[in-house]
Amino acid sequence: MFKIEYKSKISRARIGRLKLPSGEVETPLFLPIATFGNVRGLSFEEIKKIGYQMILANTYHLHLRPGTEIIKKFKSLKNFCGWNGSILTDSGGFQIFSLKNVKVFENFVEFLDEIEGKKHKLSPEKSIEIQLDFKSDILMVLDYFCGWPYKKKEIEKAVSLTTKWAQRSKIFFKEKINFKNHLRPLLFGIIQGGVYKNLREKSLKDLLEIGFDGYAIGGLGVGEGVSKMFEVIDFLVKKIPEEKPRYLMGIGLLDQILKAIKKGIDIFDCVVPTREGRHGRIFVRSQKFKYKIVNILNTKYKKDKKPIDSKCNCFVCQNFSRAFLHHLFKTKDPLGLRLASFHNLYFYFEFIEEIKRAIKKGKV
Amino acid sequence: MFKIEYKSKISRARIGRLKLPSGEVETPLFLPIATFGNVRGLSFEEIKKIGYQMILANTYHLHLRPGTEIIKKFKSLKNFCGWNGSILTDSGGFQIFSLKNVKVFENFVEFLDEIEGKKHKLSPEKSIEIQLDFKSDILMVLDYFCGWPYKKKEIEKAVSLTTKWAQRSKIFFKEKINFKNHLRPLLFGIIQGGVYKNLREKSLKDLLEIGFDGYAIGGLGVGEGVSKMFEVIDFLVKKIPEEKPRYLMGIGLLDQILKAIKKGIDIFDCVVPTREGRHGRIFVRSQKFKYKIVNILNTKYKKDKKPIDSKCNCFVCQNFSRAFLHHLFKTKDPLGLRLASFHNLYFYFEFIEEIKRAIKKGKV
Repeated sequence: MFKIEYKSKISRARIGRLKLPSGEVETPLFLPIATFGNVRGLSFEEIKKIGYQMILANTYHLHLRPGTEIIKKFKSLKNFCGWNGSILTDSGGFQIFSLKNVKVFENFVEFLDEIEGKKHKLSPEKSIEIQLDFKSDILMVLDYFCGWPYKKKEIEKAVSLTTKWAQRSKIFFKEKINFKNHLRPLLFGIIQGGVYKNLREKSLKDLLEIGFDGYAIGGLGVGEGVSKMFEVIDFLVKKIPEEKPRYLMGIGLLDQILKAIKKGIDIFDCVVPTREGRHGRIFVRSQKFKYKIVNILNTKYKKDKKPIDSKCNCFVCQNFSRAFLHHLFKTKDPLGLRLASFHNLYFYFEFIEEIKRAIKKGKV
Repeated sequence: MFKIEYKSKISRARIGRLKLPSGEVETPLFLPIATFGNVRGLSFEEIKKIGYQMILANTYHLHLRPGTEIIKKFKSLKNFCGWNGSILTDSGGFQIFSLKNVKVFENFVEFLDEIEGKKHKLSPEKSIEIQLDFKSDILMVLDYFCGWPYKKKEIEKAVSLTTKWAQRSKIFFKEKINFKNHLRPLLFGIIQGGVYKNLREKSLKDLLEIGFDGYAIGGLGVGEGVSKMFEVIDFLVKKIPEEKPRYLMGIGLLDQILKAIKKGIDIFDCVVPTREGRHGRIFVRSQKFKYKIVNILNTKYKKDKKPIDSKCNCFVCQNFSRAFLHHLFKTKDPLGLRLASFHNLYFYFEFIEEIKRAIKKGKV
């Protein structure tokens, strides 16, 4: 299912291919966020045109709106939202644990939908069931993370619960999926353990015993600091079997992505390019693998005839001035956030393509 | 400048060509509204793809934001906003007279910019000057309208002021424009007079004496009722010289547009397709020249796999279900208003194309 096609000679970076029910994707891979089944403001035609082959959709949000029953009527999330690439869905856990009204039990979590005020339950099995109903290409197990700041005791509990839930997820998944079908969806485990190496090691060991198609690192980028984060990544990646895809959840900024690729990470997702874009913060290249973030709302762009990034070949930089983009944001025209999100996602895509070329040339 | 190419044998409808600095446009013609120099949420690439050749931009809004000085730096409004078709600009009057803090003097109006709290003046000459700075293809004179409900006395005053301002606009325009240049911008006069035939007649007579490239009917669709409105249109159109383009300002719904085309109107603009689209109200064809407006937020569309309009060939109807559009509006994804606006503008364009075909076939 995962084939490593090229290994860097100067770092642990690698280029691979992941075979999924919806098609093959190349790694390193960045997933744009389609929380409610769409990348806000953009059409999937545009996402595809940039070159993206896989998106991340949020199980928690979609289960509540439009609801799993409606997605089932369309046979798949892809059919419902009109995306013809691959989909990775999270388990719903991360969103649920950030709610105010959430109770964690041994076998499930109970939470209040903040919009409709209804009580919901989510178990490890239920999360897999929903993701299978969505016909996701990659499913994530329900893990438990207590949030930052944390005490070692809490993380210990989180690792233990995460292992139990991972076990149950795998059992349920095996019951539902024909493992002889080589185009089956993949199930990824999530390593917890905070900044504590012994807990991270335990979590990974537990998951390896259960056996997953890929291994994700969760609970990072939450407040522990970048150097602590990379210590954990460095420590873990060496222990995840080389032939398995490695997914660093929710990270991040492009310099962090470059560094993590060098450490051997294959898959990334992050809200940064789209969320920043929605607020008028736009990525501009400075030198190779260097960039700055420009706030287009700044008055100094009011008369600026230049494109956002004169080195960028995207639709936005070929057709629009900074002054007009500034004007669109000032007049609250949704075209503004659309163009900024498009450019940022294009920027991310190209950045990773450039890393791939550099890996092949032996420069990364 | 205006050539009538086809006249209906069963109505006063006609098909014409209007030669403008930015290119030729065919009438009957509907102008999408680009208040701040952009059709909200859409890119001009999309507006062009639908088939639109001309848009309407609002002088009042653009003069305040980004400001005429900035547009001048780009040499034209077209350059600033990246539109390569034609532009008609209004005079700014209609918006100003709907503000709370506005004082009307003999030679100018004074008003307060509600966002920045600054005092501004606009004279007939200033309005023309701004529109010339924008390099508009069609400029409208500053007219005066007191708003609905009105008394005959107020309309009498409005007609008299409108005539005076029209005179001054024409004088100023003639000073600035080389009339020997056959690719010069056009200047349209605006007929006022409320629902009073003698006042409408006087207003038109005054304007005809001054002489304009086209004649617009203003101050309709404000509360006087549809039958009164068509009485005025019917009365006026017969008196506007046949060789001049006739523009019915701010109207409207498609059945009104069809009726007005039959009466001999050539140009229309209206916020309906885009404003309704932004609120999830979408045009759906029922029978020939008949349609209904569907509210996509209605719960009954939650599971509806059908396209918005199964008879429509637009990008939205070819690619998206009602259920997904409903979901986009429910989750406040700006893609929703973008798709709905796109479909509605496509619908308007096709509707008018169909009227043109029907005129040529002798059916309208």
